[in-house]
Amino acid sequence: MFTEQGYDGATVRAIARKAGVDAAMVNHWFGGKEALFAEAVLQLPFNPREQLTQVLGGGDPATLGERIVRTFLTIWDAHDGGIFAAMIRSVASHEKVAKALREFFHNNVFGQLAGVAADHGEIRSNLVASQMIGLGVVRYVARFDPIAASDVETVVKAVGPTLQRYLTGPLD
Amino acid sequence: MFTEQGYDGATVRAIARKAGVDAAMVNHWFGGKEALFAEAVLQLPFNPREQLTQVLGGGDPATLGERIVRTFLTIWDAHDGGIFAAMIRSVASHEKVAKALREFFHNNVFGQLAGVAADHGEIRSNLVASQMIGLGVVRYVARFDPIAASDVETVVKAVGPTLQRYLTGPLD
Repeated sequence: MFTEQGYDGATVRAIARKAGVDAAMVNHWFGGKEALFAEAVLQLPFNPREQLTQVLGGGDPATLGERIVRTFLTIWDAHDGGIFAAMIRSVASHEKVAKALREFFHNNVFGQLAGVAADHGEIRSNLVASQMIGLGVVRYVARFDPIAASDVETVVKAVGPTLQRYLTGPLD
Repeated sequence: MFTEQGYDGATVRAIARKAGVDAAMVNHWFGGKEALFAEAVLQLPFNPREQLTQVLGGGDPATLGERIVRTFLTIWDAHDGGIFAAMIRSVASHEKVAKALREFFHNNVFGQLAGVAADHGEIRSNLVASQMIGLGVVRYVARFDPIAASDVETVVKAVGPTLQRYLTGPLD
């Protein structure tokens, strides 16, 4: 239903009806629509919204870029890189999945990032996404050397300042 | 043969033999192995090695990051974003394609980038690749707003300094 009707169009109520269960049960077991999408369509091993809330909530604003990179790599390193490849493959193969992904990111990721941005929150959050998605492709899918094998802190030091500037620095 | 034997393993001579033609003819029509791979496997509408040579060769070293972003976007904007999606899909679907891509980038892209890097050429060229691949995914595959619709110079100003630092700035 997410891929047929988009992330915004698919309601938990309609999904539950199709599954023959109560909407409250879907919310209870999956923890709401965004968690259901992340688990069922993207097959993510974590909830991006919750992880981002934690990262944004704790620590020095000046190290936010580094903390985003560290959290991203720590989570994905602990799971099969194949999940990241499957997500990328799915988005690149089906326009409907790409559309649902756009809505999901808009609702659950970009809004939070834009909230800490200096200004131009939308383009800043897109820029953050571009660097993190590319880092994921290079480390887990294409597996370029030496990024694929670098320890987390080396990458954190290299890429953290990029995100820091994308969120709070000058863009022109 | 590229996906069966890898980029390094597949020789123009062997490819020509399998096609029942002379190796000189393959070189004449495709312009060598890297052009053949870029055209036949990646289905790129341009030769990455040649484009990179042009970008690296002309202009102020201090604007190299901006020129790489401008060239990348100008070329891809002029072609169907579907080609970028197909390339990403192929790399994410077949480990053998990913391996051939690694060898292709190692031989034809990373070496040139490393040549202009301040030091640590390999990780610097990987970092450049991570930002450019991610930018391509966001603009042409996932099509996040507003990056998908931003004019080239807006993105050049935002992302250029990232590449400049990756190539010549401090990484830790």
